Amino acid sequence: MEAWQKKHILGIKELTREEMETVFRLAGAFKELSHRQVKKAPALRGKTIVNLFFENSTRTKISFELAGKRLSADVLNFSASMSSLNKGETIIDTIKNLESYHPDIFVIRIGYSHILPNLSRYTSASIVNAGDGSNEHPTQALLDMFTVHQAKGMLEGLHILIVGDIMHSRVARSNIFGFQRFGAQVSVCAPPTLIPYEFSQIGVKVYYDLDEALPDADVIIMLRIQKERQVHSFFPSIREYVENFSLNASRLNSIKKDCLILHPGPINWDVEISSCLKERLHPLILKQVENGLAIRMAVLYLVGTRKREYEISD
Amino acid sequence: MEAWQKKHILGIKELTREEMETVFRLAGAFKELSHRQVKKAPALRGKTIVNLFFENSTRTKISFELAGKRLSADVLNFSASMSSLNKGETIIDTIKNLESYHPDIFVIRIGYSHILPNLSRYTSASIVNAGDGSNEHPTQALLDMFTVHQAKGMLEGLHILIVGDIMHSRVARSNIFGFQRFGAQVSVCAPPTLIPYEFSQIGVKVYYDLDEALPDADVIIMLRIQKERQVHSFFPSIREYVENFSLNASRLNSIKKDCLILHPGPINWDVEISSCLKERLHPLILKQVENGLAIRMAVLYLVGTRKREYEISD
Amino acid sequence: MEAWQKKHILGIKELTREEMETVFRLAGAFKELSHRQVKKAPALRGKTIVNLFFENSTRTKISFELAGKRLSADVLNFSASMSSLNKGETIIDTIKNLESYHPDIFVIRIGYSHILPNLSRYTSASIVNAGDGSNEHPTQALLDMFTVHQAKGMLEGLHILIVGDIMHSRVARSNIFGFQRFGAQVSVCAPPTLIPYEFSQIGVKVYYDLDEALPDADVIIMLRIQKERQVHSFFPSIREYVENFSLNASRLNSIKKDCLILHPGPINWDVEISSCLKERLHPLILKQVENGLAIRMAVLYLVGTRKREYEISD
Repeated sequence: MEAWQKKHILGIKELTREEMETVFRLAGAFKELSHRQVKKAPALRGKTIVNLFFENSTRTKISFELAGKRLSADVLNFSASMSSLNKGETIIDTIKNLESYHPDIFVIRIGYSHILPNLSRYTSASIVNAGDGSNEHPTQALLDMFTVHQAKGMLEGLHILIVGDIMHSRVARSNIFGFQRFGAQVSVCAPPTLIPYEFSQIGVKVYYDLDEALPDADVIIMLRIQKERQVHSFFPSIREYVENFSLNASRLNSIKKDCLILHPGPINWDVEISSCLKERLHPLILKQVENGLAIRMAVLYLVGTRKREYEISD
Repeated sequence: MEAWQKKHILGIKELTREEMETVFRLAGAFKELSHRQVKKAPALRGKTIVNLFFENSTRTKISFELAGKRLSADVLNFSASMSSLNKGETIIDTIKNLESYHPDIFVIRIGYSHILPNLSRYTSASIVNAGDGSNEHPTQALLDMFTVHQAKGMLEGLHILIVGDIMHSRVARSNIFGFQRFGAQVSVCAPPTLIPYEFSQIGVKVYYDLDEALPDADVIIMLRIQKERQVHSFFPSIREYVENFSLNASRLNSIKKDCLILHPGPINWDVEISSCLKERLHPLILKQVENGLAIRMAVLYLVGTRKREYEISD
Repeated sequence: MEAWQKKHILGIKELTREEMETVFRLAGAFKELSHRQVKKAPALRGKTIVNLFFENSTRTKISFELAGKRLSADVLNFSASMSSLNKGETIIDTIKNLESYHPDIFVIRIGYSHILPNLSRYTSASIVNAGDGSNEHPTQALLDMFTVHQAKGMLEGLHILIVGDIMHSRVARSNIFGFQRFGAQVSVCAPPTLIPYEFSQIGVKVYYDLDEALPDADVIIMLRIQKERQVHSFFPSIREYVENFSLNASRLNSIKKDCLILHPGPINWDVEISSCLKERLHPLILKQVENGLAIRMAVLYLVGTRKREYEISD
C-alpha cells in the first residue's frame, strides 16, 4: 500500500480509483477488527477528532464517533444549529475557535453545498465531509461501493440504478461519481422535477419510468424521500410517488435474481420501499451500516496517520 | 468463583441466589476500586457498550456510563424518545442498526414491560435491563440487596417492607423476587388501588395501614411517588397520600432501632419522606448510589467477560 | 517546582503569585503537548472528572472536557438547568449524589456567586470554578494573564484596562485580582451604572470615558455585552453603548502600538468591537482559546495529582 496523500475527504469527485481501493482494503481489515474480542486499535491514540454537526444526524454522528473511539482517538461532539449560529458567530468563527485546540480531524456535516474547501482554509486539520448540502456525502458512497464490491467481487461493468430525489441528494451525486470512476454504468430514475438537467451530460442514463429501469439493474440504490419536498411541489403527492417510484413486491418480480438493493437509511417503509419487503431487503441494508463503520474507520485512519511534512514548520 | 453463564441480565426473576452472591462479591471488589488513586480496570478494554435509553434517566444512565468507563470500555450513549421512533423506525430497527456495530453489551431502558427477551433475538450482544416498563429494574434491586447485605451481614430472615406505588413499580417487583430468593419475608404497603391482586399469592404480605406495617420491618424501601398517577385516580390526593403513607418523624418512633430505610431516588422530599428526616436518612440513600455504581460495574464485567463458546461460529 | 497545595481553584482571590506562576509554567508545557503527534499525557488516568454545568456554556465546557481527555481522565458531562432542579433536588443533593461516585474533580459552573465554598463541604473532590454568578471565573483570568505574559514577557507595571459590564462580570473581577497581584495597574471603563462602587477602593482606576482611558493601556480586555442587561436599564440603548464604549477603527488610532486587545468570547461583533477590526484582533483572541485549553489542563493536573495526606483516613 503506497503512502496516502490526500489531506481531506471532501468528495468522491476528488478521489482516484486507487485511493478508493485503498479505502476498501483498509475497511476490510477494520471490519474484521469489529468481530474480535478487543475491537480497538491504537492507531489514533492522542489524536483529537471533532465531530462538528451543523445538521442533525444521529446515525452518521454515532458511526463516526464509534469509528474514532475504536481507533483510540479522543472524540469531541460539537453540535451547532445554524439558527443559533446566526445570532452570533459565523461558521468560520466556530471552526477557528475549535482550531485553537489543534484537532487532527474535523468531521463536518453542514447544510451548505461546496463550503468545505473554503472552511479548510481556516484549519490545519483534515476535514472529512459527513454531508454538505446537496453536494456530496463521500463516506456514504464509499460504503455503498464497498458493500457492492464485497457482494459482487467487482464494480466494473455493473448497472447501478439510483431511484428517488436525485436533485437534492448528496448520496446520489457521490455515488454517481464513485461508481462511474470504477467503470460502472449509472442510471437514475425519478419524476422529471427531481432530476437535475446536467446529469444526462455526464453519462448518466435518465429514466422517468421505474418499471422500464428495473430489469437492467445489478444494483438499485433507493433514496430516502424527504416528505418536506412535497410542500415545495416537486411531486404531487406521496401517494402518487409511491404508486410510481416505490419498490413493491410486484416490481421485485422484474429485477435480476442477484440484484442488490441498497438504501442509505433511515427508511420510510411504505414510501420508497414497501414494508412487506422488509424481511428480504433489510439484511443488506444493515450490512451497509456495518460497512459504514469500517469505511469511516478507514477514512479517519488514512487522513489521521498520513505524513504531514509541509506542516512541520507550522 | 465458578464461571458466569448468564448472557443477559433481564430480571431478578431469572437469577439464582448463587449468581446474585457472585454479583455482590464482585461489587464489593469494585467498590474498593472506586477509592483508589487509579479508579480503573482494563477488564472491558476494546468492548463496546451501548446505553440505549428510550426513557429519560439522568441517574441510571450516568451510573452505567461511568461503570463502563471505569472498566475501560467504549461507551456510546444513544437516547431515543418513543415519540420520534413512532414516526419512522421501530424499536427493533433501532436495535438492528446498532447491532451492525457489533456492540458487546446493550444497556436498555424502555417503557414497555417484558419486551427485552424479544429484543434479545435481534442482537448477539448481552442485554442488561436498566428498567423495562413496570416489570423489572434488576440492577436497582441488586444494589438494594447489596446495601442491606453490607449493613446487616445477611438477608435471610429479614423483614423487608416496600411502601408506595407497588402496582407500577419495577423496583418493587425486582426487590420482591430478589429478597424472597434469599429467604427474606417481603411485605408491601400502599393504598389498595396501588397493590396488584396477585402479590398476596406469591408470599408477599399486604398492608394497607403503614402504622401497622412499620414495627416489624428490618428494612423499609420507600418508593418514589409519580405525581402523574394522581391524575389517573389511583389515589385521591397527594395530601391524603402523605398523611397515610409517608415516613415522618412520628412514624420513625415506631420502627426498630436498627431498621434500614432505602429509597431508589430521586426523592420527593415531603411526599414519600418528610424532609425533616433528610439528615438522618440521606446518608444510607447516598450509599445506595455508590453501591449502584459497583453493582453495575459487576454486572457489566460478568456479562462482558464471560466465555462465549457458542458464538464463535457467528 | 514545589509541591502544589491548593485543593480547590475557587477564585483568583485565593491564589498566590507563586501559585499562578506554577500554573503558567505548566500551561506552557501543555501548550507544547497540543502541537505533538500524540496530544495526550497519562497524568490523570483512572481519575474521574465531572463537568457539572448549571448554566449553559458550550465553549468552557468543551475546553474542560478536552483538557480532561488529553490528560487521560474519565470525563462525565452533567448538565442540569436550575429550573429542573427547583422541582425536585437541590444543588447540594446533586453534588452529594455525584459524590457517591468518588469523582476526583468537580468542574462547576453555576449562576450563584460565592456558593462553591459551601458546596465543597459536600465532596472530598477538588472543585474547579468554571464561573460562579458574577463572582469569579478563575481559569478565564489565568488564561488572560498567561496570554499577556507570553506576549509581553511580564505582567508587572502593565496598564490593564477592562471595558464593559464590569458590574456583572466574573471575568472582570478575576482579572482585577489576578493582574493586581502581579503588580499591574488595573483600570475599568463603563457607564457609571455598570461599575460597582467598591472598585475604586481596591486600587482600581475608574473611567467613564473610553477615549480618555485608551491611550495609557498596555492591555485592553473587552467584555461581552449581555444584551439582556439593557432591559434592566443599566444602559439606555445598544446604539448609545456602541457609540461610547465599543472599540472601532478610529479609537484604535489612539492606543499604544503594542497594546494587546483581549476578549473572553464569544464576541458580539459590532457591539463591543467593530467588525471591521476582526481580521486584526481575532488572532490574539483565538490565541486566548488555545491558551485556555493549556491553562485548564494545568489546573486539572495540579489539583488532580497533588498529594492528599489528610484524606487517606477517609
